[in-house]
Amino acid sequence: MKKIINSPDKIVEDMLQGFVKANKRILRFSRHTTKVIVKKEIEDKVGVVIGGGSGHEPLFMGYVGEGLADAVVVGNIFAAPTPNAILTAIKEVDRGKGVICIFGNYSGDVLNFEMGKDLAAMEGIDVTNIVVKDDVASASKNEKKSRRGIAGDLYMIKILGAASQIGKSIEECFDIAKQVDRSLVSIGVGLSPGTNPVNGEPGFYLEDGEMEFGLGIHGESGIEQRPITTSNEISKTLVELLISEMRGSMAKEIAICVNGLGSTTLMELYIIANDVQEEFDVSGYNVSDILVGNFCTTQEMGGFSISAILLNEELKTLFNMKAISSHFYKGV
Amino acid sequence: MKKIINSPDKIVEDMLQGFVKANKRILRFSRHTTKVIVKKEIEDKVGVVIGGGSGHEPLFMGYVGEGLADAVVVGNIFAAPTPNAILTAIKEVDRGKGVICIFGNYSGDVLNFEMGKDLAAMEGIDVTNIVVKDDVASASKNEKKSRRGIAGDLYMIKILGAASQIGKSIEECFDIAKQVDRSLVSIGVGLSPGTNPVNGEPGFYLEDGEMEFGLGIHGESGIEQRPITTSNEISKTLVELLISEMRGSMAKEIAICVNGLGSTTLMELYIIANDVQEEFDVSGYNVSDILVGNFCTTQEMGGFSISAILLNEELKTLFNMKAISSHFYKGV
Repeated sequence: MKKIINSPDKIVEDMLQGFVKANKRILRFSRHTTKVIVKKEIEDKVGVVIGGGSGHEPLFMGYVGEGLADAVVVGNIFAAPTPNAILTAIKEVDRGKGVICIFGNYSGDVLNFEMGKDLAAMEGIDVTNIVVKDDVASASKNEKKSRRGIAGDLYMIKILGAASQIGKSIEECFDIAKQVDRSLVSIGVGLSPGTNPVNGEPGFYLEDGEMEFGLGIHGESGIEQRPITTSNEISKTLVELLISEMRGSMAKEIAICVNGLGSTTLMELYIIANDVQEEFDVSGYNVSDILVGNFCTTQEMGGFSISAILLNEELKTLFNMKAISSHFYKGV
Repeated sequence: MKKIINSPDKIVEDMLQGFVKANKRILRFSRHTTKVIVKKEIEDKVGVVIGGGSGHEPLFMGYVGEGLADAVVVGNIFAAPTPNAILTAIKEVDRGKGVICIFGNYSGDVLNFEMGKDLAAMEGIDVTNIVVKDDVASASKNEKKSRRGIAGDLYMIKILGAASQIGKSIEECFDIAKQVDRSLVSIGVGLSPGTNPVNGEPGFYLEDGEMEFGLGIHGESGIEQRPITTSNEISKTLVELLISEMRGSMAKEIAICVNGLGSTTLMELYIIANDVQEEFDVSGYNVSDILVGNFCTTQEMGGFSISAILLNEELKTLFNMKAISSHFYKGV
C-alpha cells in the first residue's frame, strides 16, 4: 500500500482539518467535535444533515454548501458516524423546523442515525431519516429495502438541499424523498480493489481481464464476475438493466451520473458517458443533465457506477436549482 | 491494463464526444475539427486558447468557461495538438484583439504552437504564446527555460482568463503572464505509474516503499528516488524546496494547489493539504486560497504535486475573480 498519511489513527482527523482549512470561507467545525462540519451560515429552514463513513471522498463532506446539505457528520474509515456526533450535527442545523438526515442504506448507518434521531427527539427536535438505496445490483426489486446506497446519494442530497432551501416543510421534504427513492437507480462495475488505508487490505480480488458486475462501494460482491469488454458493450448492458428498473414510469426525462470509483480515469468516464447517453437516447429517454467525475469513491478502487434519475416536473425544478459546494457546482 | 475504452484509436474522439455532450449548454465543437472545443459565447476581448496532449484530464479541456479559456485544442494521448488544429482554435476565438495561447513547456507543444502562431500571422491574427514552466524539479533555476509545465498551468489559465475578461490588451496579458511565470512554482511526487491507454505500457517503475521525488506528468524522471515517509515529512521537504525558489519576493500572500495525479485519494490530498498549509504558515506565508483535487493527471498515476503562486495585488485581484467551467469553480 502506497498511501501518503501520517498515521492510521489520524487519517480522518488530518483529512478533515485539511478540508476545513481549504474551505474556511464557507465551512467550520462544530465546537463539540471535529467529526461534524457545518455551513457558516444556516438559513431559517429545515436542516439537512448528511453523513456516513470516511473513505468515499468527496462523499459526503464535499456536498455541504449552498442549496445542498447544511452539515456533514463523519465516521471513521468505512464506519458509521456515532449517534452522539449525529446528534451534534442535528443540533447545529436545527432552526426549529426539524432536520432531515440523508445517508446510505448500511446497517451501521441506519442503526446510528436512528439512535441520533431518538436522542434528538428527547431534546424536542423533529428528525426524519432518509435512507438512500439506489444500488439495483445489491438486492432484487422486491427486496428494495435491502438495497445499498451508492453514488445516487448525490441526487438525493441535491434535490432535498434545494427543497429545504425553498422552504419546504419536513413532511414535504419526506414526500419529495419518496419520489426520489422511486425514481433513482444505480449500478457499479469494479475493475480493481481499493485499499483500506488503516490496515492496508485490498477490498477484493479480481483476475486480469475480469470485472465485478454490480460491485458495492465497500467491495461488496456484485451479481457476477464477467470479462471486461468495450465501453459500448458494458454501457449497453448497464443501461438496459437500469431501464428495466425504471419501467412503468411516465417520465422520460432523466439526469445521469457517470461516477468514478477512484483510479478509473476521467478520460474513461467521458468515453462511458458518451456511450451511456447514446444508449438512453435510443431507448427514448431525454438525458437533460450529465454529471461525470469522482463523486463517490472507494479509495483507489478501479471502476465506475452509473446512476439515473427520472425527473418529473417537481424533481426537475429542484434538481436544476443553483448549488455550490467544495466538490459540486450547478449553475442556473 | 484494465481500461474501459472502445478501441485505442478512438479514445480521444470518444472522450471528447462525451465531454461535449455533458457540457452542451456552454461548449460546442469547432465546425472544422472535433479536436477544438469552444465556448458557445465568446466576448469581444483577447481570445484565450489552451491546449496540449490528452491523457491529463481534466487538463486542459476542463478549464474552458467563464473567466477561463475560450477554447481548447486537443492532441492525441501525450502528444501535442497539430498546428492546423491550433490555427482553427485561434480563429474560433479571435475577435480582432488578438489571441493568447497557453500550454506547457514541452518541445512538441512549443513547436506546434509556434507554427500555429505563424499560420495565424499569415491570416492577420496577432498571437502571443505563453509557455508554462512551473516544475522546479525539471531543471535548475538558472535553466528555467527548460522547466516543464505541470499543474501550475491552472493558475496561468485562471489569471489570464480573468485578465482577458476585464478587457486587458494582448500586451497587458503578456505582462501579467510574465508576473505569473516569476511567481509560480510546482513540484511533483510519483508513487506508482500511470498506463498509456494506447499501448498499455506503464510510465515508469518504482519499488515498493519508494517514491520518485520531482516526477514529471508523463513519467519523466525526477530528482531522485526516496523512501516513502509521512505526509508531514514529505510536505516539509517539498515546501522548503518551493520556498527556496520563491526567495527574494516581497509578496507573502500565496495560493496553493494540492493536485492528485490520478489514483491518489482525495483523502490523502486533504491530509497533505493540511500539512502543506502548516509548513507555509510557519514559514511566514499567508495562504489565502487552497485548491485540492485532481486538476492535472497522468492517467491513474499515483502521487501528487504541490503548486504555489505568490499573489501581488494585481495577480490577487485576477485570481479572485469569478470563474466557472466543467471542472473548476471560483465564486466571488
